[in-house]
Amino acid sequence: MTRLTHISDEGSARMVDVTAKEVTARTARASGRVLVSDAVIDALRAGDVPKGDVLAVARIAGIQAAKRTPDLVPLCHPLAIHGVDVEVQVADRAVEIDATVRTADRTGVEMEALTAVSAAALTVVDMIKAIDRAAVITDVRVEEKSGGRSGRWQRE
Amino acid sequence: MTRLTHISDEGSARMVDVTAKEVTARTARASGRVLVSDAVIDALRAGDVPKGDVLAVARIAGIQAAKRTPDLVPLCHPLAIHGVDVEVQVADRAVEIDATVRTADRTGVEMEALTAVSAAALTVVDMIKAIDRAAVITDVRVEEKSGGRSGRWQRE
Amino acid sequence: MTRLTHISDEGSARMVDVTAKEVTARTARASGRVLVSDAVIDALRAGDVPKGDVLAVARIAGIQAAKRTPDLVPLCHPLAIHGVDVEVQVADRAVEIDATVRTADRTGVEMEALTAVSAAALTVVDMIKAIDRAAVITDVRVEEKSGGRSGRWQRE
Amino acid sequence: MTRLTHISDEGSARMVDVTAKEVTARTARASGRVLVSDAVIDALRAGDVPKGDVLAVARIAGIQAAKRTPDLVPLCHPLAIHGVDVEVQVADRAVEIDATVRTADRTGVEMEALTAVSAAALTVVDMIKAIDRAAVITDVRVEEKSGGRSGRWQRE
Amino acid sequence: MTRLTHISDEGSARMVDVTAKEVTARTARASGRVLVSDAVIDALRAGDVPKGDVLAVARIAGIQAAKRTPDLVPLCHPLAIHGVDVEVQVADRAVEIDATVRTADRTGVEMEALTAVSAAALTVVDMIKAIDRAAVITDVRVEEKSGGRSGRWQRE
Amino acid sequence: MTRLTHISDEGSARMVDVTAKEVTARTARASGRVLVSDAVIDALRAGDVPKGDVLAVARIAGIQAAKRTPDLVPLCHPLAIHGVDVEVQVADRAVEIDATVRTADRTGVEMEALTAVSAAALTVVDMIKAIDRAAVITDVRVEEKSGGRSGRWQRE
Repeated sequence: MTRLTHISDEGSARMVDVTAKEVTARTARASGRVLVSDAVIDALRAGDVPKGDVLAVARIAGIQAAKRTPDLVPLCHPLAIHGVDVEVQVADRAVEIDATVRTADRTGVEMEALTAVSAAALTVVDMIKAIDRAAVITDVRVEEKSGGRSGRWQRE
Repeated sequence: MTRLTHISDEGSARMVDVTAKEVTARTARASGRVLVSDAVIDALRAGDVPKGDVLAVARIAGIQAAKRTPDLVPLCHPLAIHGVDVEVQVADRAVEIDATVRTADRTGVEMEALTAVSAAALTVVDMIKAIDRAAVITDVRVEEKSGGRSGRWQRE
Repeated sequence: MTRLTHISDEGSARMVDVTAKEVTARTARASGRVLVSDAVIDALRAGDVPKGDVLAVARIAGIQAAKRTPDLVPLCHPLAIHGVDVEVQVADRAVEIDATVRTADRTGVEMEALTAVSAAALTVVDMIKAIDRAAVITDVRVEEKSGGRSGRWQRE
Repeated sequence: MTRLTHISDEGSARMVDVTAKEVTARTARASGRVLVSDAVIDALRAGDVPKGDVLAVARIAGIQAAKRTPDLVPLCHPLAIHGVDVEVQVADRAVEIDATVRTADRTGVEMEALTAVSAAALTVVDMIKAIDRAAVITDVRVEEKSGGRSGRWQRE
Repeated sequence: MTRLTHISDEGSARMVDVTAKEVTARTARASGRVLVSDAVIDALRAGDVPKGDVLAVARIAGIQAAKRTPDLVPLCHPLAIHGVDVEVQVADRAVEIDATVRTADRTGVEMEALTAVSAAALTVVDMIKAIDRAAVITDVRVEEKSGGRSGRWQRE
Repeated sequence: MTRLTHISDEGSARMVDVTAKEVTARTARASGRVLVSDAVIDALRAGDVPKGDVLAVARIAGIQAAKRTPDLVPLCHPLAIHGVDVEVQVADRAVEIDATVRTADRTGVEMEALTAVSAAALTVVDMIKAIDRAAVITDVRVEEKSGGRSGRWQRE
């Protein structure tokens, strides 16, 4: 029941065989936050200079990272990603990130959604590090998933 | 003072020119945690099956991701990474990750250390998700850095 | 009608969801040219030294770039490329490139064909730049495509 | 004089040895255009929907592609890119792209600048292809370069 | 009969079109060995220090390389890898590697299995080169394959 | 003396810190062979169809793989490759490969030379597998290296 499926009986890492799993439409949504200083929030909200690219860079980093998940996570299966939405919003004490990934393939896309959130968060940290060295990425987690044998799951 | 250096005066993303910065030895250490269920901790600590690869996969994912930081974080400079250590430990309620990156180059390696921690954390989530879908990556942050013009910085 | 599908109603970049699109055989052909000096044409046509690799490097760069399109073009879907032909020919004032890409997947392969042509053209420029610094890549465009809901399209 | 340096005397492709070349500050600027229909220009200029991300995606694709030049152009040397600026502007009949790349290394960065322009152009084509299938990438060329043994060069 | 399918009638490299090939479950197994000195065997077998990661790094390198085969082998089709097992064992005079790759796709996975073995072998050489500079990678070969039109094949 | 430097005292994989190593000119040469059937040799030597691309694809795969060594070999340092030559020749019973890699950096380039040979060999196997499924990659090994603290080494 509590078996680590990515490890064989001998303790060796492996990529689990999913050949026999069904191709179905699958969705996963993940979220996360970057805790930043007030100075960062001010800079991100300042009106006198166009800030379009700040959040755009993070969104695009998230979309691209979703496609590269099997490169980053060694035992992840490569799969055909069919849609990605990454939202990046400036809240009062944090930059909030939310990513939804969709596919029609043999495995779920939770890892792709988490990777999108992580890369977007890292990109936010990179862009604001000249102002705030102490930013913290936190609460990166799957919010809900659907499709596949295990059906719909939602964080309580 | 609170200027976003990666954004030009017109609001466009750019890779900041560091040609004139000095090549010096630089180090950065980052940490993070994956909050997991008791069942995961039990599986990771169980003695009847060799678990060597579980933590090894996370360590190696971290080392490799450090090298790929400029691919993941769009405005990051490519740089010559000269050393990476990633520690992954099973604590009571979490898997704890700590990464140290070293270089002798023109820019700091905070982003490389944070990327190593993030990739190791994502890999832990991937390996235990069959047991615990609700794992959370949290507290990913720079702990200390040294080298370069700004010298040593340590989280308070 | 003139909507930019890759941008959400709020102006955010996204990877459009194609989960519901049909898997059909699709083909796209693109072409382009590298305008070069007479000295380059002479060198490429010279008979006293085998030139096999000059055009081969460009062809192979094109084939490999087709496979990497989703890495280069941020909102492109990863897809299963099933065939690529890249032709590179020395004409009187230019090196002419033509690429055909085939797949059976959910989206068209125009971007893959254009990327193959662009990479082959960049490779030609790289190989001849010691002779001609002023080379120009021009007329990179889709010539025809077939398959998918929109059927066959041909440049007039 | 008209020798193809990337090809050995036997006609084989090779990566030229630059170990003995000097490390100096080098810059290259390249430009290019995407010819598009009036409907595209209208959509890119329309005021009722925020268009921030449209040009941002192209800029970021250009910056990232500059870093990946040695992956795309087979005989290109990997080098430490120290700065990249990509400008993307909507003109009357075209989207105009201009990229400047800086380094302090052993080889010039013309190929990196040209690759940045090409990737930004491909990204523009991808984003507008639902409106205009007939877009053409044209006039991709080096405008000027400086640094290295050959010094400053400017297109006439 | 002895035609090189990856080369056109004009001698140009191409990626063969497999659009019309059937999607079937396919498996390939490959093996190889790294011949090493007695000092290496002793170090790998020494009991006083945990050696878990030594073989783990090679296993993981093999799994990841299988996913990157189309990046390394220019005319290889990208395909959806559904399972990978890499075994690395210390024998009396050699480190022995065995890789099995599974998919349900249009082409066989021999190249993926061979690439997994090669990358695992290179990784072994890298890890032991401080002890033995003279290690040799040898006997890298397909052992058996099944699935597809040509059915089962086994090395005699 | 027989210590595995890539493994810490606790048995964990790490990328060894080379910050303090000297930047010097370094060279490594490696070789290897692909054993093939007579039918393959005949096809590679046949005179009625241009075979330029067959060996060119292998050469280029080798050059490109040298640049990607740190992606493939997890604990390898990224370094600035300054020159690569890959020779591929058809002998009586085998295709013979020889690769020389040059750099001016902090670590040796043996792994880069071995990776170039391995990728060229895999590419040869891929191109001839329709004729000979039983090809074997063998004798992949460093022939000589120079530069760095340990100076010149040559296989006996």
